[in-house]
Amino acid sequence: MSRTSAEILAVGNELLIGQTLDTNSNWLAQRLHALGWTVERITTVRDSLKSIRDSVVEALDRSPELLLTVGGLGPTYDDMTIKGLSKAIGKPLTLNRDALAMVMMKYRTLEEPAVLTVHRKKMATLPRGAKPLPNPAGTAPGVMVRARRTTIISFPGVPTELKAIFKTYVIPILRRSGAPPPSGLYIMIVGIVESALAPILDSVRGKYSTLYWKSHPMGRETGVRSLIKLHIYTVGKGDEKTVRDAAVFLLERLSKSSAKSQD
Amino acid sequence: MSRTSAEILAVGNELLIGQTLDTNSNWLAQRLHALGWTVERITTVRDSLKSIRDSVVEALDRSPELLLTVGGLGPTYDDMTIKGLSKAIGKPLTLNRDALAMVMMKYRTLEEPAVLTVHRKKMATLPRGAKPLPNPAGTAPGVMVRARRTTIISFPGVPTELKAIFKTYVIPILRRSGAPPPSGLYIMIVGIVESALAPILDSVRGKYSTLYWKSHPMGRETGVRSLIKLHIYTVGKGDEKTVRDAAVFLLERLSKSSAKSQD
Repeated sequence: MSRTSAEILAVGNELLIGQTLDTNSNWLAQRLHALGWTVERITTVRDSLKSIRDSVVEALDRSPELLLTVGGLGPTYDDMTIKGLSKAIGKPLTLNRDALAMVMMKYRTLEEPAVLTVHRKKMATLPRGAKPLPNPAGTAPGVMVRARRTTIISFPGVPTELKAIFKTYVIPILRRSGAPPPSGLYIMIVGIVESALAPILDSVRGKYSTLYWKSHPMGRETGVRSLIKLHIYTVGKGDEKTVRDAAVFLLERLSKSSAKSQD
Repeated sequence: MSRTSAEILAVGNELLIGQTLDTNSNWLAQRLHALGWTVERITTVRDSLKSIRDSVVEALDRSPELLLTVGGLGPTYDDMTIKGLSKAIGKPLTLNRDALAMVMMKYRTLEEPAVLTVHRKKMATLPRGAKPLPNPAGTAPGVMVRARRTTIISFPGVPTELKAIFKTYVIPILRRSGAPPPSGLYIMIVGIVESALAPILDSVRGKYSTLYWKSHPMGRETGVRSLIKLHIYTVGKGDEKTVRDAAVFLLERLSKSSAKSQD
């Protein structure tokens, strides 16, 4: 995979019974895309040690530069992401002093002296070699660890905590990867059905092969008024000018085709 | 895997750049859960033949009873789910007469006589042995095909089309699987932090080991007023009474623990 490929692993039964809509992965995907990363896959698994371990191993086998995991960092039994991660990367769990300091600092705002229970200790127990990332909005620290060619960063599932850790500690790290930002634009095409747009797109795609072309039908293909949202974009392969040239070229083809069909 | 395990595979670059929030998988997960199925995994991949083929093969290796794919059934080049599926299950693409009749019937509402273009033909070209499912809300039919021990059903990504096919043609098939519906309830727990709830949950889980227990912190663990939403539920393993008994048992433990801490 390329230097800027990323994957997201979301953990939680609530996502798989449809109780919770996974806005976290969507938010992360938006941010990664804007920073020039290509998210190749999002995987959602249950709160099961085997599922977490297996899905991390599978992701590492695909060698993304970056793997972000979401959810399962809290103090309760159903929070098992770090244990699954530890098994997947073969680095045993140990009490991390920096993480413990972060966790206990939070509890001192709650009680003095703060009691170190086994469940609080759990949030500071990380794979050997992992680095905790302070959580500005909650208790469980984020976790960063390197495995094979992949940097793994684990976030809590509470959206405010995930966003705070990402903005404060992760963006500065990702920026250093130096990926160029994506370029893209949307064209709204009215009055031509997707099956009629298809051959025109085919001919244009060949000329601009470094770009992504994706058509989204917004109405019914056979409805009275068809509407297609066409997205032309590039991640780290083209530039803004290429995207604009491609859009102009497509629009010329479309108007020729429309003139012809009116002959 | 169990007789009622399911997976969802969502296909589309728009999901991986965060442009579109994947409400389809969430909707399907809700419906499957309500019908007694256990969704083990949701996988989201790009519009890439290799990604689609690989992720279908991986899903089949896990032997779910059911694999639902979403997106990529339309007429344009970027719609490649059926081609990827065909490669994954080793069943070559052929023109399906029933599917062709469904597709052309739609175009006859648009033009008479309807022209059979290569891109329209594409929507009727299915893996050998597949059965098309009529699309009450759009053009591309759904596709059902059996591979190894798994029934695969492919839906278009337009939400109205997916829902129409699911409600009209898929629910009757799934009902026949006869899985018992899930039972569950939520308890809102105020004023106890998750790390203090954890040991109580541990002791209760042992007694009700057929149930799923999942705690969702709704506020900050160390905030002034902590709030935890606890979900107790079962899929095909317990019954409604067991869930209620477990909830009562937990509430008794919680009130004892609270009385003790006030001593």
